[in-house]
This record gives sequence, structure tokens and C-alpha cells, in this order.
Amino acid sequence: MSIEAKLADFSVKSRPSADALAMMRLSLMDWAACGIAGRDEPLAVILRDKGIAEGGKAEASVIGGGKLPAPRAALINGAISHALDYDDTHFAHIGHTSVGVIPAVLAVAERVGASFDDFLAACLIGSEGAVRVGIWLGRDHYQIGYHQTATAGAFGACLGALRLLGANETQAIAGIGLVSTKAAGLKTQFGTMGKPLNAGLAAEAGVEAALWAMAGLTSTETGLQAFGATHHGVADEVALEGLGETWRMLGVSHKFHACCHGLHAMLEALSEVSVDPSHIASVEITTHPRWITVCNKPTPQTGLEAKFSYSQTAAMALMGVDTSAIASFSDEVAKRADLVGLRGQVAVVADGSLSEMQARVRVTLIDGSVVKVAHDLASPMTLEVRAAKLQRKARGLVEDADALWNVAELADLTALLRA
Amino acid sequence: MSIEAKLADFSVKSRPSADALAMMRLSLMDWAACGIAGRDEPLAVILRDKGIAEGGKAEASVIGGGKLPAPRAALINGAISHALDYDDTHFAHIGHTSVGVIPAVLAVAERVGASFDDFLAACLIGSEGAVRVGIWLGRDHYQIGYHQTATAGAFGACLGALRLLGANETQAIAGIGLVSTKAAGLKTQFGTMGKPLNAGLAAEAGVEAALWAMAGLTSTETGLQAFGATHHGVADEVALEGLGETWRMLGVSHKFHACCHGLHAMLEALSEVSVDPSHIASVEITTHPRWITVCNKPTPQTGLEAKFSYSQTAAMALMGVDTSAIASFSDEVAKRADLVGLRGQVAVVADGSLSEMQARVRVTLIDGSVVKVAHDLASPMTLEVRAAKLQRKARGLVEDADALWNVAELADLTALLRA
Repeated sequence: MSIEAKLADFSVKSRPSADALAMMRLSLMDWAACGIAGRDEPLAVILRDKGIAEGGKAEASVIGGGKLPAPRAALINGAISHALDYDDTHFAHIGHTSVGVIPAVLAVAERVGASFDDFLAACLIGSEGAVRVGIWLGRDHYQIGYHQTATAGAFGACLGALRLLGANETQAIAGIGLVSTKAAGLKTQFGTMGKPLNAGLAAEAGVEAALWAMAGLTSTETGLQAFGATHHGVADEVALEGLGETWRMLGVSHKFHACCHGLHAMLEALSEVSVDPSHIASVEITTHPRWITVCNKPTPQTGLEAKFSYSQTAAMALMGVDTSAIASFSDEVAKRADLVGLRGQVAVVADGSLSEMQARVRVTLIDGSVVKVAHDLASPMTLEVRAAKLQRKARGLVEDADALWNVAELADLTALLRA
Repeated sequence: MSIEAKLADFSVKSRPSADALAMMRLSLMDWAACGIAGRDEPLAVILRDKGIAEGGKAEASVIGGGKLPAPRAALINGAISHALDYDDTHFAHIGHTSVGVIPAVLAVAERVGASFDDFLAACLIGSEGAVRVGIWLGRDHYQIGYHQTATAGAFGACLGALRLLGANETQAIAGIGLVSTKAAGLKTQFGTMGKPLNAGLAAEAGVEAALWAMAGLTSTETGLQAFGATHHGVADEVALEGLGETWRMLGVSHKFHACCHGLHAMLEALSEVSVDPSHIASVEITTHPRWITVCNKPTPQTGLEAKFSYSQTAAMALMGVDTSAIASFSDEVAKRADLVGLRGQVAVVADGSLSEMQARVRVTLIDGSVVKVAHDLASPMTLEVRAAKLQRKARGLVEDADALWNVAELADLTALLRA
């Protein structure tokens, strides 16, 4: 069975497990909170205004207001929900799954009038598909310069959309073929509006390809294989083992700090440290070598740069600045003298024996005593603990977090997104 | 100066030469004829119906009827105009330039109310940009599996769109960056509707990226460099030599036969052969090795397969079947006994010393005499001869070819396309 046939079969027939659906619901709520919180970002305004000006059939909700044709709503919502870079991450997939997949599935769900349960199941099928394709494409694909959020995300978006459209296997294989010729997105966009745009491109490509396949466009049946061969894919078949039975989406990570995910293990470790900042002599952070090139700005000058700085965020955490609040990452905070002073005492060390989800922190006090803490983002967290943490995060992002949290109908969710 | 800066400068400032504009006008007319002739193809109906159903602001004409937002019209028209695979080819660029570029420039021209002359100049700037980027990406990019029509085409479409939108250099560089993260298209689609769709994807990507840049989306400034590095680009800077001074679009090829371009040098050579088919003992075709894998089906069973067959099209030409007529490539003609008999006498030989644009034909008659002919598609053809051949071709494709040929206003052209 080809990889395209396996994914098509998964899209058409799979039955999500209850625990995976529960996790998906948390990712959905977190995605919606991030989207609503990002609705007034410059990127959001530009794309929404352009979309509304172009207009079209009011079939799918746009975050921040209005309804547009499904492919267009998917594009805009994908970009808006990634604007704050505060949405979920899947480390094995090497990217953000929800921002590429959920906007596509949501737009199609509104278009076809799906139930909330069918919508949630399709979100999970799309997200799981994105994760599996991301793993199948592998680290080579990422390292050469592709953005899995966009590329693997487009495949996942397509699989979720096909599910809601009631595709049969032939249509699903055509959809996978068509998305393979449209999926795109480069890492070189990191640091520009092109990064969140990439998430929107994934969502749009998934919706378009699925709708094209359902309308009868013919396509290669080996689209993903060709995509892998051209896009430096590792093409490791192990990535698909257990598809439909085990759910890699259970390994998704959520951000509890409004900064680069590479800083989170350190920040979780520091949450266990309680010392008077004035007693600190030095701080040593040990992290995976990859993060050194991603988020180790020693002297950030802006709020954006602070989001990619071990020293700054460590200082913020030790000084009691709320790193879960977006407002904490302002230009002013980046220049605060006490934080600048403390961050000057922070050293960052790479250690290849750590995973990308692990960090160690060693705080040395002026009296010579040492506090050692460590954290592994992969360590188990119950759904209840995760839900509580995400709900608290949502309360800091949106006004009506509790209404969002209790959503049980698609129309209630989309009304909150449009508001 | 970076390659992005060079292309941006070219888009913003270049002044097309008169001879290049005259050639562009011929490509434009040929493109329009192919588009109108393809308006009822299954792919055309599917995409146009979907577009009309989704609706939106009536700013750009759709081939076959209606107006839609510019990005959507660009997508649909790109695909429709490539549906018959009868549009122009640029061998150095390794693809079809007009189907990716013209639909984008046309949609933007209608959106901004451009004059016909400005529209034509932007078509040329976009096409020249596509050719240069195609050469820069090189043969490796094509051989690994990318479709230059779609990828380099998207960059060209963007450059042409930026010209009409009045972009400054900063905006043009942003547009190039944004199109680099959206440009996509795989050769594995050849033989399916995904192939003409790829041309539409190029046109859409170019329009979207240009409009996004003008609306203020920020982007990497080294987008094409990143695109080349990830997409197996050769990145040969020689490709940009003389940009703005010499026009590689003067080397564009037009199809005068309704089949794969690899067969055309042979068919032009055979047009000089006048023998009674019943006197033929054997035919030997010598061609470039690449074409052996593209268009050497020895026993085609359908009209589509006949379009990729040396033996069938050689037999058709020798038997006086009009290879310029689309209707000649029917399933019936593929099965005609006299043609099947003659094609059985045809041998095809590869010769790496020929260029891809050259072919030799040796016809041996039953009496032992031999007729030898050869043709090089690169051999000079005056604009007048080319115009006459293209106008004759257009008369076989559309009802109102002479009206099309005399178009001098954008509104007249778009009215013919919508009809």
C-alpha cells in the first residue's frame, strides 16, 4: 500500500480515540484563544482587509469579523492564529500543527454544516496526518530550509478537509496528489510576517486541494512520494506505523510562555526556583545545541528579540515578570535596568546529551549556595493539569475565555472567533 | 547587488525594447487563442464553476465567462490556458512562460485599469523574469521534479504584477520574498489535470504575493536565494547577465502542432517531405535523448497518447493529417489502420549531439531512394512569418481570430476572453 493510500485510508475510515480527542479539544481551545488574541496584529488587519475587499460567498468565519469563501477564510485564519507564535508545537513533527490544520477544517466544517463532534474528529485526523507527514519528511527537510508547519501542515489540512467532505479513497488520493503540488513554505520567513503567512498557506492549500479533488480534478497518485523526493524528505516509513491506532498528537506541546518554545523547558524549571533576585550571583542554563542558534540573543533590545533570549527570559522569570503574558514582551521590559543587570549574569551552555525538550538551570547565590533545577517538556502532564494551565493562559489572552472553554456547538465557536 | 534586488530593479525600472514587445504581443495573442480554445475542457469547467460559486468582487475576467477577484481569476485562467498544452515554450527556461505570467498580469491590469501598452510591457517584464529565474534555477531543478512553468513562473508573474501595481524597490523585494514561500509545482502531475493547474498556481502566487507586498506584509529579503537553495537550484548568476538590456523572451518558441513540443522539430522537417505514403519503406527519426523519455510512445491508443508519439505524429504528417488541429488528436486517429501501419515503419534514434530543438528525418522509399530532412526550432524566423503562422493557428482554434489579432484595448481583449 502506497503512503498516499495509507493516508487516504486514514482520512476516510479512522476512528479517533477518546483520549486523543480530549487532547485535540485542548489544542483547539488554545488555538482559538491565540487566534482571537492575534486578531488586531498588523498582519491580521492586512490579510482580513484584503479578504473582505475581495469578498465572496459568506461560508466560513474570519477571526475578527466577517465570512468569506472557505479557502480564503482558511488562509487568513491560519496566518492570524500564528501571528503571536503562541500556539501549539509538535516537536517530532518539527512544527506547529494547529495553525495549519484547524483553520482548514473549520472553514470546511462551516461550509458543509458539520457537527462540533465531526469537526473535532476531523481536526484530530488532520493534525495527526500533519504530524505523521512531518515525521516522514524528517529533520533533513527542516534543516535545508522548509517549514513543516507549512508543508506537512498542508497535507494534514487536506486530510482533515477530505474527512468532512466525505471523500472516498480515490478522491482522498487525488486530494493528496493535488496538495503535493501546492504545498510550500520556507523557514527563511522566520522573523517576518511571512512566518505566520506560511501557516495560512498550509490551511489554504489543504482546503483548495480537497475541494478540487471532490470536484473531479485528476492528479498524480504518488504526490507525497514526489514531494518527498523533491523536498529533501527522509521518507522514513516508520513514521506511519500504527497510523489510526496510536495517536502521535497525544505528544503535542502547548506554550505556557509567550516566547520561543526553545525557552520553555528553562522557564518551567525556573518556576520551581524561589530566591531573592538580589541574592543571585550567576545563572547557568544548559540546553540542546539547536536552540543556541534559535533563541540565544544575549542582549535583546525589543520585545520581539526578548522572545528569543535565554538571558532575558531567565531574568524575567527570576524577577517575577509574568512570562505567560504577551504584554510582558514589550520594548520597555527589554530595556528595564534591573532585568538588563540580571541577564548579564546569565550564561548559556549547549549540551548535546539533552533533548530539545530538556533544560537544566544552576543558580549560584552570592553566599555560594547553589540551586539546581531541571525540566523535561516531554514529562507526563495529566489532561486535567494541562487543561487548567491552558484555561489560565486563555484568560490572559481573551475576554471571554470561559465561554470559549465551554463551547459545544460549532456556531458558538465561530461567533467567538468573529467577534 | 542581490539577485532579489536585481529582479526588483528590473521590475520597477526596465524599459522593454520594441522587438521584444512585438514578440510578446505574438505570445499574448497565441496565449489568448489557446485559452479561448480550452474554455470548455473539463478542468476549465470545474475550476470556473468553483470560482463563480465562491464569487467575490468582479475585478478580473475569467476565460469563458464572469469576473472574479484578481488572484482567483489568475488561477483559473492560468489553468484553462494550459489545458490544451498548446501555448508557448521557452526551452532555456524549461517551461511555458505565458500560462504562468499573462493570467497574473492580466488580472492585475484589469484591477488597476491599466492601458493595453502598460499591460503588454508588464507581460514582457514578467515573462522575461520567469525565463531568467528558470535559467537561474537550471536543469537540476527540473530534473529532480520541479515544474519551472509553476515555480519560475510564479516569480515572473509576481514581477509583472508588481510593475503594474507601481511597486517601489522595497515593495518589489518583499513581493519576491513572499512569492518564494508560495511558489510550488511538481512535474509528477504531467499527464493529469494537475499539470495545467500548476500554471494557474504560478499566476495566483504571483498576484497574491504582489498584492500582499503592496499592502505591507513584511518578508525575507533573500527569498529567491532560499528558494534556490531548498529547491535544487543551480543558482548560476550568468542567468541574469544583461537583464533589462537583452531580452531572452526573443527566444520563445511557439507550437504550430497540437502535440508535445519534443515532436515539433521532426514535424517541421517532415513538412518539407512530399512523397506518396504508399511508396515509403521506412522512416528514421533522430532526436535529442531527453525526448525519448517524454514523447516516444510507439503504439499510442488514445488521442492524448498520440500527442506524445514520434511514430504516430510522423505517420500523420506523412499521410497529410493536419497536426496543427486539436481535433486531429482523437482516439479514432490513434487507431486508424493506415496510420498504425505506417507508424510501424518508424524508428526513433537518440543522438546527444543534437540540441533539444533539433531533429533529423530519413525517409527510405521502396525503390531504395532516400529523402533526408532536418530542422532546428532555434533557426531564425522573422516576426512576420511567425505572426502569419500563429494567426493561421489561431483561426483553427477560435471563431474570432482576426478580431483577437487586431485587439488594441484591454477591454476588447477581456471581452473576447469572457465570451
